[in-house]
Amino acid sequence: MLILLTNDDGITAPGLLAVYRELIKMGEVHVVAPETVQSATGHGITLAKPLLTSQVTIDEGVVGTAVDGRPADCVKLAVSQILPRQPDLVISGINSGANVGINVIYSGTVAAAIEAAFLGLPSVALSLFLKSDVPTDYARAARWSMRVIDDLLNKGLGPGQVASVNFPALGPDAETPPIRYCRQCTRPWVDTYEKRLDPRGRAYYWNSSVFKLGETESDTDVAFLRQGYTTVTPLHFDLTHYPLLARWK
Amino acid sequence: MLILLTNDDGITAPGLLAVYRELIKMGEVHVVAPETVQSATGHGITLAKPLLTSQVTIDEGVVGTAVDGRPADCVKLAVSQILPRQPDLVISGINSGANVGINVIYSGTVAAAIEAAFLGLPSVALSLFLKSDVPTDYARAARWSMRVIDDLLNKGLGPGQVASVNFPALGPDAETPPIRYCRQCTRPWVDTYEKRLDPRGRAYYWNSSVFKLGETESDTDVAFLRQGYTTVTPLHFDLTHYPLLARWK
Repeated sequence: MLILLTNDDGITAPGLLAVYRELIKMGEVHVVAPETVQSATGHGITLAKPLLTSQVTIDEGVVGTAVDGRPADCVKLAVSQILPRQPDLVISGINSGANVGINVIYSGTVAAAIEAAFLGLPSVALSLFLKSDVPTDYARAARWSMRVIDDLLNKGLGPGQVASVNFPALGPDAETPPIRYCRQCTRPWVDTYEKRLDPRGRAYYWNSSVFKLGETESDTDVAFLRQGYTTVTPLHFDLTHYPLLARWK
Repeated sequence: MLILLTNDDGITAPGLLAVYRELIKMGEVHVVAPETVQSATGHGITLAKPLLTSQVTIDEGVVGTAVDGRPADCVKLAVSQILPRQPDLVISGINSGANVGINVIYSGTVAAAIEAAFLGLPSVALSLFLKSDVPTDYARAARWSMRVIDDLLNKGLGPGQVASVNFPALGPDAETPPIRYCRQCTRPWVDTYEKRLDPRGRAYYWNSSVFKLGETESDTDVAFLRQGYTTVTPLHFDLTHYPLLARWK
Protein backbone atom coordinates (compact mmCIF):
# COMPACT_ATOMS: atom_id res chain seq x y z
CA MET A 1 0.00 0.00 0.00
CA LEU A 2 1.40 3.38 -1.03
CA ILE A 3 0.35 6.22 1.26
CA LEU A 4 0.88 9.94 0.71
CA LEU A 5 1.11 11.86 3.99
CA THR A 6 0.76 15.64 4.11
CA ASN A 7 -0.56 18.32 6.46
CA ASP A 8 -0.97 22.07 6.88
CA ASP A 9 1.13 22.61 10.01
CA GLY A 10 4.39 22.09 8.12
CA ILE A 11 6.59 19.07 7.54
CA THR A 12 8.18 19.16 11.01
CA ALA A 13 4.90 19.27 12.94
CA PRO A 14 4.59 16.62 15.68
CA GLY A 15 1.16 15.46 14.50
CA LEU A 16 2.59 14.41 11.13
CA LEU A 17 5.45 12.42 12.63
CA ALA A 18 3.12 10.71 15.11
CA VAL A 19 0.77 9.44 12.43
CA TYR A 20 3.73 8.51 10.19
CA ARG A 21 4.93 6.13 12.92
CA GLU A 22 1.58 4.34 12.77
CA LEU A 23 1.03 4.47 9.00
CA ILE A 24 4.33 2.70 8.21
CA LYS A 25 2.75 -0.40 9.77
CA MET A 26 0.23 -0.33 6.89
CA GLY A 27 2.52 0.28 3.94
CA GLU A 28 5.03 2.56 2.25
CA VAL A 29 4.57 6.15 3.37
CA HIS A 30 5.77 9.17 1.36
CA VAL A 31 5.77 12.52 3.11
CA VAL A 32 5.24 15.60 0.92
CA ALA A 33 4.24 18.53 3.11
CA PRO A 34 4.49 22.33 3.31
CA GLU A 35 7.83 23.78 4.39
CA THR A 36 6.10 26.22 6.73
CA VAL A 37 2.87 26.52 8.69
CA GLN A 38 -0.12 26.87 6.35
CA SER A 39 -2.97 27.02 8.82
CA ALA A 40 -6.18 28.68 7.57
CA THR A 41 -4.86 28.96 4.02
CA GLY A 42 -7.94 27.14 2.73
CA HIS A 43 -7.81 25.64 -0.71
CA GLY A 44 -5.23 28.02 -2.14
CA ILE A 45 -2.81 26.82 -4.82
CA THR A 46 0.36 28.24 -6.34
CA LEU A 47 0.28 29.14 -10.02
CA ALA A 48 2.26 32.35 -10.50
CA LYS A 49 5.53 31.27 -8.89
CA PRO A 50 7.49 28.03 -8.81
CA LEU A 51 7.26 25.50 -6.02
CA LEU A 52 10.66 25.04 -4.41
CA THR A 53 11.28 21.67 -2.82
CA SER A 54 13.85 20.22 -0.46
CA GLN A 55 14.54 16.90 1.21
CA VAL A 56 14.04 17.15 4.95
CA THR A 57 15.02 14.67 7.65
CA ILE A 58 12.04 14.84 9.98
CA ASP A 59 13.35 12.34 12.50
CA GLU A 60 15.76 9.41 12.57
CA GLY A 61 15.04 7.42 9.41
CA VAL A 62 12.15 9.64 8.32
CA VAL A 63 12.78 11.75 5.22
CA GLY A 64 10.21 13.80 3.39
CA THR A 65 9.88 16.42 0.67
CA ALA A 66 9.17 19.94 1.88
CA VAL A 67 7.32 22.19 -0.57
CA ASP A 68 7.19 25.97 -0.16
CA GLY A 69 3.53 26.00 -1.10
CA ARG A 70 0.05 25.26 0.14
CA PRO A 71 -1.28 21.90 1.32
CA ALA A 72 -3.20 21.44 -1.94
CA ASP A 73 0.01 22.15 -3.91
CA CYS A 74 1.73 19.34 -2.00
CA VAL A 75 -0.92 16.84 -3.06
CA LYS A 76 -0.89 17.99 -6.69
CA LEU A 77 2.89 17.94 -6.91
CA ALA A 78 3.27 14.62 -5.08
CA VAL A 79 0.76 12.85 -7.30
CA SER A 80 1.94 14.44 -10.54
CA GLN A 81 5.73 14.40 -9.98
CA ILE A 82 7.15 13.01 -6.78
CA LEU A 83 5.52 9.65 -5.98
CA PRO A 84 6.59 6.55 -7.92
CA ARG A 85 2.92 5.80 -8.71
CA GLN A 86 -0.62 6.88 -7.74
CA PRO A 87 -1.04 6.50 -3.97
CA ASP A 88 -3.63 4.08 -2.60
CA LEU A 89 -4.50 6.45 0.22
CA VAL A 90 -3.85 10.10 1.09
CA ILE A 91 -3.67 11.17 4.74
CA SER A 92 -3.56 14.80 5.88
CA GLY A 93 -2.66 15.62 9.46
CA ILE A 94 -2.76 15.16 12.33
CA ASN A 95 -3.71 18.82 12.56
CA SER A 96 -3.09 20.73 15.77
CA GLY A 97 -6.65 21.87 16.38
CA ALA A 98 -10.13 20.74 15.42
CA ASN A 99 -11.54 21.23 11.93
CA VAL A 100 -15.26 21.04 12.54
CA GLY A 101 -18.15 23.29 11.55
CA ILE A 102 -17.41 26.01 9.03
CA ASN A 103 -13.71 25.79 9.89
CA VAL A 104 -13.74 22.96 7.37
CA ILE A 105 -13.81 25.65 4.67
CA TYR A 106 -10.72 27.48 5.97
CA SER A 107 -8.69 24.39 6.79
CA GLY A 108 -5.58 23.57 4.80
CA THR A 109 -5.64 20.06 6.29
CA VAL A 110 -9.07 19.44 4.80
CA ALA A 111 -8.17 21.19 1.53
CA ALA A 112 -5.33 18.73 0.99
CA ALA A 113 -7.71 15.81 1.47
CA ILE A 114 -10.29 17.35 -0.87
CA GLU A 115 -7.58 17.97 -3.47
CA ALA A 116 -6.72 14.27 -3.31
CA ALA A 117 -10.38 13.43 -3.86
CA PHE A 118 -10.48 15.71 -6.95
CA LEU A 119 -7.68 13.58 -8.30
CA GLY A 120 -9.77 10.45 -7.76
CA LEU A 121 -7.99 9.19 -4.64
CA PRO A 122 -9.42 8.09 -1.29
CA SER A 123 -8.35 10.48 1.46
CA VAL A 124 -8.66 11.16 5.17
CA ALA A 125 -8.08 14.44 7.03
CA LEU A 126 -7.13 14.00 10.69
CA SER A 127 -7.45 16.78 13.29
CA LEU A 128 -7.03 16.84 17.06
CA PHE A 129 -9.11 19.17 19.19
CA LEU A 130 -6.82 21.01 21.62
CA LYS A 131 -7.79 22.31 25.03
CA SER A 132 -5.46 24.28 27.25
CA ASP A 133 -6.25 22.15 30.31
CA VAL A 134 -5.71 18.79 28.55
CA PRO A 135 -2.20 17.54 27.61
CA THR A 136 -1.76 17.13 23.84
CA ASP A 137 -0.92 13.53 22.95
CA TYR A 138 -0.35 13.05 19.23
CA ALA A 139 0.95 9.50 19.65
CA ARG A 140 -2.37 8.48 21.14
CA ALA A 141 -4.34 10.37 18.49
CA ALA A 142 -2.24 8.52 15.89
CA ARG A 143 -3.28 5.17 17.38
CA TRP A 144 -6.91 6.32 17.33
CA SER A 145 -6.36 7.33 13.68
CA MET A 146 -5.51 3.77 12.74
CA ARG A 147 -8.78 2.53 14.18
CA VAL A 148 -10.74 5.08 12.18
CA ILE A 149 -8.81 4.41 8.97
CA ASP A 150 -9.41 0.68 9.45
CA ASP A 151 -13.10 1.32 9.97
CA LEU A 152 -13.28 3.50 6.84
CA LEU A 153 -11.39 0.99 4.71
CA ASN A 154 -13.75 -1.74 5.91
CA LYS A 155 -16.76 0.37 5.00
CA GLY A 156 -15.11 0.99 1.64
CA LEU A 157 -13.47 4.40 1.31
CA GLY A 158 -13.53 4.72 -2.46
CA PRO A 159 -11.77 6.80 -5.12
CA GLY A 160 -12.69 10.46 -4.79
CA GLN A 161 -14.10 10.00 -1.29
CA VAL A 162 -12.94 12.17 1.61
CA ALA A 163 -13.46 11.66 5.32
CA SER A 164 -12.72 14.45 7.78
CA VAL A 165 -11.92 13.01 11.20
CA ASN A 166 -11.71 14.95 14.46
CA PHE A 167 -10.44 13.59 17.76
CA PRO A 168 -11.66 14.93 21.10
CA ALA A 169 -9.52 16.51 23.82
CA LEU A 170 -9.48 13.82 26.50
CA GLY A 171 -7.42 13.43 29.65
CA PRO A 172 -4.58 10.88 29.83
CA ASP A 173 -6.71 8.18 31.47
CA ALA A 174 -9.63 8.35 29.04
CA GLU A 175 -10.71 5.30 27.08
CA THR A 176 -10.55 5.25 23.30
CA PRO A 177 -13.33 7.55 22.14
CA PRO A 178 -16.10 5.88 20.12
CA ILE A 179 -16.63 6.98 16.51
CA ARG A 180 -19.69 8.97 15.41
CA TYR A 181 -20.42 9.50 11.72
CA CYS A 182 -22.10 12.88 11.49
CA ARG A 183 -22.71 15.99 9.43
CA GLN A 184 -20.86 19.31 9.41
CA CYS A 185 -22.27 22.12 11.54
CA THR A 186 -22.86 25.17 9.31
CA ARG A 187 -23.51 27.80 11.94
CA PRO A 188 -21.36 30.93 11.70
CA TRP A 189 -19.14 32.24 14.42
CA VAL A 190 -18.88 35.89 15.32
CA ASP A 191 -15.76 37.61 14.00
CA THR A 192 -14.08 40.13 16.23
CA TYR A 193 -11.16 42.39 15.39
CA GLU A 194 -9.07 44.73 17.48
CA LYS A 195 -8.41 48.00 15.69
CA ARG A 196 -5.04 49.67 16.31
CA LEU A 197 -3.14 52.56 14.76
CA ASP A 198 0.40 52.27 13.44
CA PRO A 199 3.00 54.96 14.34
CA ARG A 200 1.90 56.88 11.21
CA GLY A 201 -1.78 56.80 12.14
CA ARG A 202 -2.92 54.13 9.69
CA ALA A 203 -5.47 51.60 10.92
CA TYR A 204 -4.66 47.93 11.19
CA TYR A 205 -6.71 45.09 12.60
CA TRP A 206 -5.92 41.95 14.56
CA ASN A 207 -8.39 39.11 14.31
CA SER A 208 -9.32 38.42 17.93
CA SER A 209 -12.10 35.87 17.36
CA VAL A 210 -12.36 33.20 20.01
CA PHE A 211 -12.64 29.82 18.32
CA LYS A 212 -14.70 27.55 20.46
CA LEU A 213 -17.23 24.82 19.83
CA GLY A 214 -20.33 27.00 19.86
CA GLU A 215 -24.08 26.49 19.83
CA THR A 216 -25.15 23.79 17.39
CA GLU A 217 -27.75 21.16 16.61
CA SER A 218 -27.40 17.80 18.37
CA ASP A 219 -26.41 15.78 15.27
CA THR A 220 -23.35 17.74 14.11
CA ASP A 221 -19.58 17.27 14.26
CA VAL A 222 -19.35 20.17 16.73
CA ALA A 223 -21.87 18.57 19.11
CA PHE A 224 -20.31 15.10 19.07
CA LEU A 225 -16.73 16.36 19.34
CA ARG A 226 -17.66 18.37 22.41
CA GLN A 227 -19.22 15.25 23.94
CA GLY A 228 -15.92 13.40 23.57
CA TYR A 229 -16.57 11.34 20.46
CA THR A 230 -14.29 10.90 17.48
CA THR A 231 -16.27 12.44 14.64
CA VAL A 232 -16.13 11.37 11.00
CA THR A 233 -17.77 13.50 8.31
CA PRO A 234 -17.68 12.52 4.63
CA LEU A 235 -17.12 15.59 2.47
CA HIS A 236 -17.77 16.43 -1.16
CA PHE A 237 -16.57 19.11 -3.55
CA ASP A 238 -19.75 19.74 -5.49
CA LEU A 239 -20.70 23.14 -4.09
CA THR A 240 -23.96 23.34 -6.08
CA HIS A 241 -26.90 24.16 -3.82
CA TYR A 242 -29.37 21.83 -5.54
CA PRO A 243 -32.57 22.85 -3.71
CA LEU A 244 -31.90 26.48 -4.57
CA LEU A 245 -31.00 25.55 -8.15
CA ALA A 246 -34.34 23.78 -8.53
CA ARG A 247 -36.17 26.83 -7.20
CA TRP A 248 -34.27 29.35 -9.35
CA LYS A 249 -34.71 27.30 -12.49
CA MET B 1 -29.31 49.75 -0.48
CA LEU B 2 -25.84 49.25 0.99
CA ILE B 3 -23.56 47.14 -1.19
CA LEU B 4 -20.14 45.73 -0.28
CA LEU B 5 -17.92 45.27 -3.33
CA THR B 6 -14.78 43.14 -3.18
CA ASN B 7 -12.76 40.87 -5.48
CA ASP B 8 -9.63 38.71 -5.65
CA ASP B 9 -7.74 40.53 -8.40
CA GLY B 10 -6.91 43.46 -6.14
CA ILE B 11 -8.56 46.81 -5.52
CA THR B 12 -7.26 48.44 -8.71
CA ALA B 13 -8.47 45.67 -11.05
CA PRO B 14 -10.54 46.93 -14.00
CA GLY B 15 -13.33 44.40 -13.40
CA LEU B 16 -14.02 45.87 -9.97
CA LEU B 17 -14.19 49.45 -11.23
CA ALA B 18 -16.45 48.47 -14.12
CA VAL B 19 -19.04 46.83 -11.90
CA TYR B 20 -18.74 49.66 -9.36
CA ARG B 21 -19.88 52.10 -12.09
CA GLU B 22 -23.06 50.03 -12.53
CA LEU B 23 -23.70 49.21 -8.87
CA ILE B 24 -23.79 52.87 -7.79
CA LYS B 25 -27.04 53.13 -9.78
CA MET B 26 -28.54 50.66 -7.29
CA GLY B 27 -27.33 52.13 -4.00
CA GLU B 28 -24.39 53.08 -1.81
CA VAL B 29 -21.32 51.01 -2.70
CA HIS B 30 -18.39 50.44 -0.31
CA VAL B 31 -15.25 48.92 -1.79
CA VAL B 32 -13.12 46.80 0.55
CA ALA B 33 -10.75 44.68 -1.50
CA PRO B 34 -7.30 43.06 -1.36
CA GLU B 35 -4.31 45.35 -1.84
CA THR B 36 -2.69 42.84 -4.20
CA VAL B 37 -3.69 40.03 -6.56
CA GLN B 38 -5.12 37.08 -4.62
CA SER B 39 -6.01 34.71 -7.43
CA ALA B 40 -6.26 31.03 -6.50
CA THR B 41 -5.88 31.76 -2.79
CA GLY B 42 -9.09 29.88 -2.09
CA HIS B 43 -10.81 30.42 1.21
CA GLY B 44 -7.70 31.41 3.15
CA ILE B 45 -7.98 33.87 6.03
CA THR B 46 -5.44 35.81 8.09
CA LEU B 47 -5.19 35.01 11.79
CA ALA B 48 -1.51 35.14 12.78
CA LYS B 49 -0.69 38.62 11.52
CA PRO B 50 -2.59 41.91 11.48
CA LEU B 51 -4.51 43.17 8.49
CA LEU B 52 -3.06 46.49 7.32
CA THR B 53 -5.47 48.79 5.57
CA SER B 54 -5.18 51.91 3.45
CA GLN B 55 -7.53 54.26 1.65
CA VAL B 56 -7.04 54.03 -2.10
CA THR B 57 -8.38 56.29 -4.83
CA ILE B 58 -9.32 53.81 -7.51
CA ASP B 59 -10.54 56.37 -10.03
CA GLU B 60 -11.94 59.88 -10.01
CA GLY B 61 -14.44 59.97 -7.16
CA VAL B 62 -14.02 56.31 -6.29
CA VAL B 63 -12.31 55.58 -2.98
CA GLY B 64 -11.99 52.18 -1.35
CA THR B 65 -10.25 50.40 1.50
CA ALA B 66 -7.34 48.17 0.49
CA VAL B 67 -6.60 45.27 2.85
CA ASP B 68 -3.32 43.36 2.73
CA GLY B 69 -5.16 40.07 3.16
CA ARG B 70 -7.30 37.51 1.40
CA PRO B 71 -10.69 38.10 -0.21
CA ALA B 72 -12.43 36.37 2.72
CA ASP B 73 -10.55 38.67 5.14
CA CYS B 74 -11.93 41.68 3.27
CA VAL B 75 -15.50 40.52 3.76
CA LYS B 76 -14.99 39.69 7.44
CA LEU B 77 -13.27 42.98 8.15
CA ALA B 78 -15.72 45.07 6.14
CA VAL B 79 -18.75 43.59 7.86
CA SER B 80 -17.25 43.58 11.34
CA GLN B 81 -15.40 46.92 11.29
CA ILE B 82 -15.50 49.10 8.21
CA LEU B 83 -19.07 49.38 6.94
CA PRO B 84 -21.53 51.66 8.75
CA ARG B 85 -24.04 48.78 8.96
CA GLN B 86 -24.66 45.26 7.63
CA PRO B 87 -24.68 45.38 3.82
CA ASP B 88 -27.83 44.41 1.93
CA LEU B 89 -25.80 42.73 -0.80
CA VAL B 90 -22.21 41.58 -1.29
CA ILE B 91 -20.69 41.52 -4.78
CA SER B 92 -17.32 39.91 -5.59
CA GLY B 93 -15.67 40.61 -8.94
CA ILE B 94 -15.76 40.96 -11.82
CA ASN B 95 -12.99 38.38 -11.88
CA SER B 96 -10.59 38.24 -14.81
CA GLY B 97 -11.21 34.64 -15.82
CA ALA B 98 -13.96 32.08 -15.42
CA ASN B 99 -14.69 30.34 -12.13
CA VAL B 100 -16.52 27.24 -13.25
CA GLY B 101 -16.08 23.55 -12.48
CA ILE B 102 -13.72 22.68 -9.67
CA ASN B 103 -12.02 26.08 -10.05
CA VAL B 104 -14.85 27.21 -7.80
CA ILE B 105 -12.92 25.63 -4.92
CA TYR B 106 -9.68 27.53 -5.64
CA SER B 107 -11.29 30.87 -6.41
CA GLY B 108 -10.79 33.82 -4.10
CA THR B 109 -13.67 35.58 -5.87
CA VAL B 110 -16.05 32.79 -4.92
CA ALA B 111 -14.55 32.45 -1.41
CA ALA B 112 -15.41 36.09 -0.70
CA ALA B 113 -19.01 35.47 -1.73
CA ILE B 114 -19.22 32.29 0.36
CA GLU B 115 -17.74 34.13 3.34
CA ALA B 116 -20.54 36.71 3.01
CA ALA B 117 -23.06 33.88 3.00
CA PHE B 118 -21.55 32.44 6.21
CA LEU B 119 -22.26 35.80 7.74
CA GLY B 120 -25.88 35.55 6.69
CA LEU B 121 -25.73 37.98 3.75
CA PRO B 122 -26.92 37.52 0.15
CA SER B 123 -23.96 37.52 -2.23
CA VAL B 124 -23.01 37.22 -5.87
CA ALA B 125 -19.63 36.26 -7.37
CA LEU B 126 -19.05 37.61 -10.89
CA SER B 127 -16.43 36.17 -13.27
CA LEU B 128 -15.67 36.81 -16.93
CA PHE B 129 -14.34 34.05 -19.15
CA LEU B 130 -11.32 35.33 -21.07
CA LYS B 131 -10.19 34.13 -24.48
CA SER B 132 -7.06 35.37 -26.18
CA ASP B 133 -8.89 35.97 -29.48
CA VAL B 134 -11.78 37.93 -27.93
CA PRO B 135 -11.33 41.50 -26.63
CA THR B 136 -11.99 41.80 -22.89
CA ASP B 137 -14.84 44.20 -22.19
CA TYR B 138 -15.50 44.63 -18.47
CA ALA B 139 -17.93 47.52 -18.99
CA ARG B 140 -20.18 45.24 -21.02
CA ALA B 141 -19.83 42.41 -18.49
CA ALA B 142 -20.80 44.92 -15.79
CA ARG B 143 -23.99 45.76 -17.69
CA TRP B 144 -24.71 42.04 -18.02
CA SER B 145 -24.08 41.75 -14.26
CA MET B 146 -26.91 44.14 -13.50
CA ARG B 147 -29.35 42.02 -15.48
CA VAL B 148 -28.32 38.91 -13.56
CA ILE B 149 -28.43 40.66 -10.19
CA ASP B 150 -31.90 41.99 -11.04
CA ASP B 151 -33.02 38.51 -11.99
CA LEU B 152 -31.64 37.06 -8.75
CA LEU B 153 -33.22 39.75 -6.59
CA ASN B 154 -36.55 39.12 -8.31
CA LYS B 155 -36.26 35.40 -7.66
CA GLY B 156 -35.39 36.28 -4.06
CA LEU B 157 -31.68 36.01 -3.24
CA GLY B 158 -31.95 35.52 0.50
CA PRO B 159 -29.68 35.81 3.54
CA GLY B 160 -26.88 33.26 3.35
CA GLN B 161 -27.47 32.53 -0.33
CA VAL B 162 -24.64 32.71 -2.86
CA ALA B 163 -24.82 32.81 -6.64
CA SER B 164 -21.70 32.29 -8.75
CA VAL B 165 -22.12 33.97 -12.13
CA ASN B 166 -19.88 33.45 -15.16
CA PHE B 167 -20.03 35.49 -18.36
CA PRO B 168 -18.97 34.04 -21.70
CA ALA B 169 -16.21 35.34 -23.97
CA LEU B 170 -18.17 36.90 -26.83
CA GLY B 171 -17.13 39.12 -29.69
CA PRO B 172 -17.97 42.85 -29.67
CA ASP B 173 -21.09 42.45 -31.82
CA ALA B 174 -22.65 39.63 -29.79
CA GLU B 175 -26.08 40.02 -28.26
CA THR B 176 -26.57 39.88 -24.50
CA PRO B 177 -26.04 36.24 -23.53
CA PRO B 178 -29.09 34.49 -22.05
CA ILE B 179 -28.88 33.21 -18.48
CA ARG B 180 -28.74 29.51 -17.64
CA TYR B 181 -29.16 28.33 -14.07
CA CYS B 182 -27.02 25.20 -13.79
CA ARG B 183 -24.89 22.99 -11.58
CA GLN B 184 -21.12 22.98 -11.05
CA CYS B 185 -19.05 20.54 -13.11
CA THR B 186 -16.99 18.37 -10.74
CA ARG B 187 -14.65 16.73 -13.23
CA PRO B 188 -10.94 17.06 -12.44
CA TRP B 189 -8.39 18.58 -14.73
CA VAL B 190 -4.97 17.11 -15.30
CA ASP B 191 -2.17 18.87 -13.43
CA THR B 192 1.12 19.28 -15.20
CA TYR B 193 4.37 20.64 -13.80
CA GLU B 194 7.68 21.49 -15.39
CA LYS B 195 10.58 20.32 -13.28
CA ARG B 196 13.72 22.49 -13.28
CA LEU B 197 16.92 22.62 -11.25
CA ASP B 198 18.16 25.74 -9.49
CA PRO B 199 21.86 26.74 -9.82
CA ARG B 200 22.58 24.62 -6.73
CA GLY B 201 20.88 21.53 -8.13
CA ARG B 202 17.68 21.64 -6.09
CA ALA B 203 14.46 20.74 -7.85
CA TYR B 204 11.68 23.25 -8.32
CA TYR B 205 8.44 22.98 -10.23
CA TRP B 206 6.34 25.34 -12.31
CA ASN B 207 2.69 24.56 -12.62
CA SER B 208 2.12 24.37 -16.39
CA SER B 209 -1.49 23.15 -16.39
CA VAL B 210 -3.57 24.47 -19.25
CA PHE B 211 -6.88 25.72 -17.88
CA LYS B 212 -9.54 25.20 -20.45
CA LEU B 213 -13.19 24.26 -20.40
CA GLY B 214 -12.76 20.51 -20.69
CA GLU B 215 -15.00 17.50 -21.19
CA THR B 216 -18.17 17.70 -19.16
CA GLU B 217 -21.81 16.66 -18.95
CA SER B 218 -24.33 18.74 -20.90
CA ASP B 219 -26.03 20.34 -17.87
CA THR B 220 -23.04 21.95 -16.14
CA ASP B 221 -21.62 25.46 -15.82
CA VAL B 222 -18.67 24.45 -18.01
CA ALA B 223 -20.94 23.22 -20.82
CA PHE B 224 -23.22 26.26 -20.86
CA LEU B 225 -20.38 28.79 -20.55
CA ARG B 226 -18.66 27.24 -23.54
CA GLN B 227 -21.90 27.52 -25.51
CA GLY B 228 -21.99 31.26 -24.84
CA TYR B 229 -24.51 31.44 -22.02
CA THR B 230 -24.22 33.42 -18.82
CA THR B 231 -24.21 30.71 -16.16
CA VAL B 232 -25.57 31.07 -12.64
CA THR B 233 -24.87 28.41 -10.02
CA PRO B 234 -26.19 28.66 -6.46
CA LEU B 235 -23.52 27.49 -4.00
CA HIS B 236 -23.60 26.23 -0.44
CA PHE B 237 -21.03 25.76 2.30
CA ASP B 238 -22.26 22.53 3.84
CA LEU B 239 -19.57 20.16 2.58
CA THR B 240 -21.22 17.07 4.12
CA HIS B 241 -21.59 14.29 1.57
CA TYR B 242 -25.03 13.14 2.74
CA PRO B 243 -25.42 10.01 0.60
CA LEU B 244 -22.06 8.75 1.83
CA LEU B 245 -22.93 9.71 5.41
CA ALA B 246 -26.10 7.63 5.20
CA ARG B 247 -24.14 4.66 3.86
CA TRP B 248 -21.35 4.90 6.44
CA LYS B 249 -23.76 5.26 9.34
